[in-house]
Amino acid sequence: MTYATLDYQLEDGILTITLNRPEFMNAFTVTMANELIAAINRASNDDEVRVIVFTGAGKAFCAGMDLRAEGNVFGLNGELQPTMADLEAHFDDPEYVSGVRDTGGRVTLALYDCAKPVIAAINGAAVGIGATMTLAMDIRLASTEARIGFVFNKIGIVPEACSSWFLPRVVGISRALEWTYSGEILSAEKAKAGGLLKDIYAPEALMDEAYKIARQIAENTSPVAIAMTRQMMYRNSAMPHPRDAHKVDSLAVFYACQKDGKEGVASFLEKRKPQFTQTAPADLPPFYPWWD
Amino acid sequence: MTYATLDYQLEDGILTITLNRPEFMNAFTVTMANELIAAINRASNDDEVRVIVFTGAGKAFCAGMDLRAEGNVFGLNGELQPTMADLEAHFDDPEYVSGVRDTGGRVTLALYDCAKPVIAAINGAAVGIGATMTLAMDIRLASTEARIGFVFNKIGIVPEACSSWFLPRVVGISRALEWTYSGEILSAEKAKAGGLLKDIYAPEALMDEAYKIARQIAENTSPVAIAMTRQMMYRNSAMPHPRDAHKVDSLAVFYACQKDGKEGVASFLEKRKPQFTQTAPADLPPFYPWWD
Amino acid sequence: MTYATLDYQLEDGILTITLNRPEFMNAFTVTMANELIAAINRASNDDEVRVIVFTGAGKAFCAGMDLRAEGNVFGLNGELQPTMADLEAHFDDPEYVSGVRDTGGRVTLALYDCAKPVIAAINGAAVGIGATMTLAMDIRLASTEARIGFVFNKIGIVPEACSSWFLPRVVGISRALEWTYSGEILSAEKAKAGGLLKDIYAPEALMDEAYKIARQIAENTSPVAIAMTRQMMYRNSAMPHPRDAHKVDSLAVFYACQKDGKEGVASFLEKRKPQFTQTAPADLPPFYPWWD
Repeated sequence: MTYATLDYQLEDGILTITLNRPEFMNAFTVTMANELIAAINRASNDDEVRVIVFTGAGKAFCAGMDLRAEGNVFGLNGELQPTMADLEAHFDDPEYVSGVRDTGGRVTLALYDCAKPVIAAINGAAVGIGATMTLAMDIRLASTEARIGFVFNKIGIVPEACSSWFLPRVVGISRALEWTYSGEILSAEKAKAGGLLKDIYAPEALMDEAYKIARQIAENTSPVAIAMTRQMMYRNSAMPHPRDAHKVDSLAVFYACQKDGKEGVASFLEKRKPQFTQTAPADLPPFYPWWD
Repeated sequence: MTYATLDYQLEDGILTITLNRPEFMNAFTVTMANELIAAINRASNDDEVRVIVFTGAGKAFCAGMDLRAEGNVFGLNGELQPTMADLEAHFDDPEYVSGVRDTGGRVTLALYDCAKPVIAAINGAAVGIGATMTLAMDIRLASTEARIGFVFNKIGIVPEACSSWFLPRVVGISRALEWTYSGEILSAEKAKAGGLLKDIYAPEALMDEAYKIARQIAENTSPVAIAMTRQMMYRNSAMPHPRDAHKVDSLAVFYACQKDGKEGVASFLEKRKPQFTQTAPADLPPFYPWWD
Repeated sequence: MTYATLDYQLEDGILTITLNRPEFMNAFTVTMANELIAAINRASNDDEVRVIVFTGAGKAFCAGMDLRAEGNVFGLNGELQPTMADLEAHFDDPEYVSGVRDTGGRVTLALYDCAKPVIAAINGAAVGIGATMTLAMDIRLASTEARIGFVFNKIGIVPEACSSWFLPRVVGISRALEWTYSGEILSAEKAKAGGLLKDIYAPEALMDEAYKIARQIAENTSPVAIAMTRQMMYRNSAMPHPRDAHKVDSLAVFYACQKDGKEGVASFLEKRKPQFTQTAPADLPPFYPWWD
């Protein structure tokens, strides 16, 4: 499988997906969106992939929607005048998927469903969808060159890609409103101070730091446990009662203890490194996905 | 329209609402509550209003409920002994609106529904409802003279004005519990360190800083995009699944791209300042309000 | 009532529950879980108890599940192969309570329902369930000796004890994912910087600081108001709309104003210390528990 807009490199369980239109600052197109969704689903379903690292080729991470690209603005079909009921009724119809539904959100929903942890290595400008797509990536690192802008209101549109769901979870509701109202381009320092970034590194150190985190996960943890943890954190925390989490916890621990958890405990008692044998998604427990 | 307890001044799209009982430290009364609700709804429905800035006349922002004012304590009708089912059945009945329902919450629910961004310029003491009403304002600035206290538990009552919904979203659940259990009067520094305030300014600089943010919004963004963003952030982030946000995003971007979004993109490509022509609420898209 | 694994000491309204298996670093067993649930429910129902402080005997707070203790791993009944529907149908059946349901979650659900504020004084290692149980305690203080680890993924299992519900509420979703993926043992400094701890103290000062907060609550606030505040913060903040909070606020203030709130207001006007006479749970208002 090859991609026109991405580079997809798997090595030692760590998949690097590079947004790869450097001559256009990796600007986002419908083709890139569809390739991202395909690549994310492929990685989620590939038991060889342990962790995904996203970055951009060249100087930018992603400069936002490619406003010069083919099709009408954002690819929307202006002949439809859909109501919410229309959208719900036709959610998966091709006409709505390509003509009504937000393209960025189709990507972040794929990220949300992904069974692998995701790290964003923001190497430069991340603007518009270039900023909002990283909100569905679990951990964000940035280079000192990163500039991050939720610029939507300044061009007459609204924050998309489910960012109204993700951004307040990452930086709190007040900061989310402040940053989206202003559309300000944030320096890496300002973004970190606001809680958006784990840390900032020199440009030449950024990928090493991302791979350090990725390797730590790939070498020391159970793939099934990691996949379950990701889905539990996002989904259980949005439930109305901790009892909802307790049900998932109970079954997740129950099934984990029949294999990788048993080995984990044995290795701990024997003071040796565990040898986890389960893979994800192959060995995800029978009640997964519990939300269907 | 004039108000007994407020000053309402609109200039260049920026509305300043000043709590105006300086001889009583702007203490909150039932009259002030009803005037606040009327003023917030008026501003929300006035296409000339782009941003609302709240502040207090004189030395205080708002010293809390006026405990010396007319009526029984908090205006509640002690002859009723309502159950939750009673309250739900009679939610909008005048007897319940004035005799049972929390007055502060009626104000913050009006703020929640407001189609305009809201900035609090906390110029002095903000105590009790004076503190909790600011939680439904999007961005809080304070002067070095500000003192903020969620003092309810110390006078035998509970945090109100929907603060149990808003405060954990702003400062996290642990800080929300700590501050409300203790009822401590927080210095501006402590409130900022806890995430309650964007920043602190000298008393003479406070309004200038609030207006700087207000002007930046009024001059550079689309009123429809801003109104939509506000409702999307509060509402979508409280939904159980990002798909809920995606549906709103999709229709919001779809309709924005027919007018102000089209101009925004054109102006960007032509490297000029956009000329947005839509106003809010007049030009809000046909699916708004989507939550009804 | 005596406990094999706990010390339970009530003095001046402040209950200290000490995890008391110092020879095993207070490692968590099924017995300890059942005793914790019994102790938490007893305290919640005892009107003499105003605040609960948790700590550990000896050098550790709680070193996690006692992996050497009796029974199969985590006490689970491997002969069952439960689905989510099975778990929901048999949620309170003894076979499921002891054979399927997560033991740590049974403890944190008891903490969640507790009518008394809870302070964790983390005196040393808090690992696995030793870390996650503190997430349902409202305020966490730590000694400089504390080490906190959400180590689950490293031993092939997943974060439990409803931590996927609590941890993102305390430290945000990104930090929650980062800390659970890595399983890193956090220093007190790192845990505080991430928002997990209110503050860090010298080992010999830790309990004094916890008792300072406890006394401030016990001496200056209304027990009914405090109990209501705790349930309102956790429950209302997880509701989809602030109107849900408003309903509870309204009834809570309404009933508070008939007794302790009336005294609170009177004492404020008369510039004297209030004499609250209501106790919890005895005097909780008639609509409590409103979530049933």
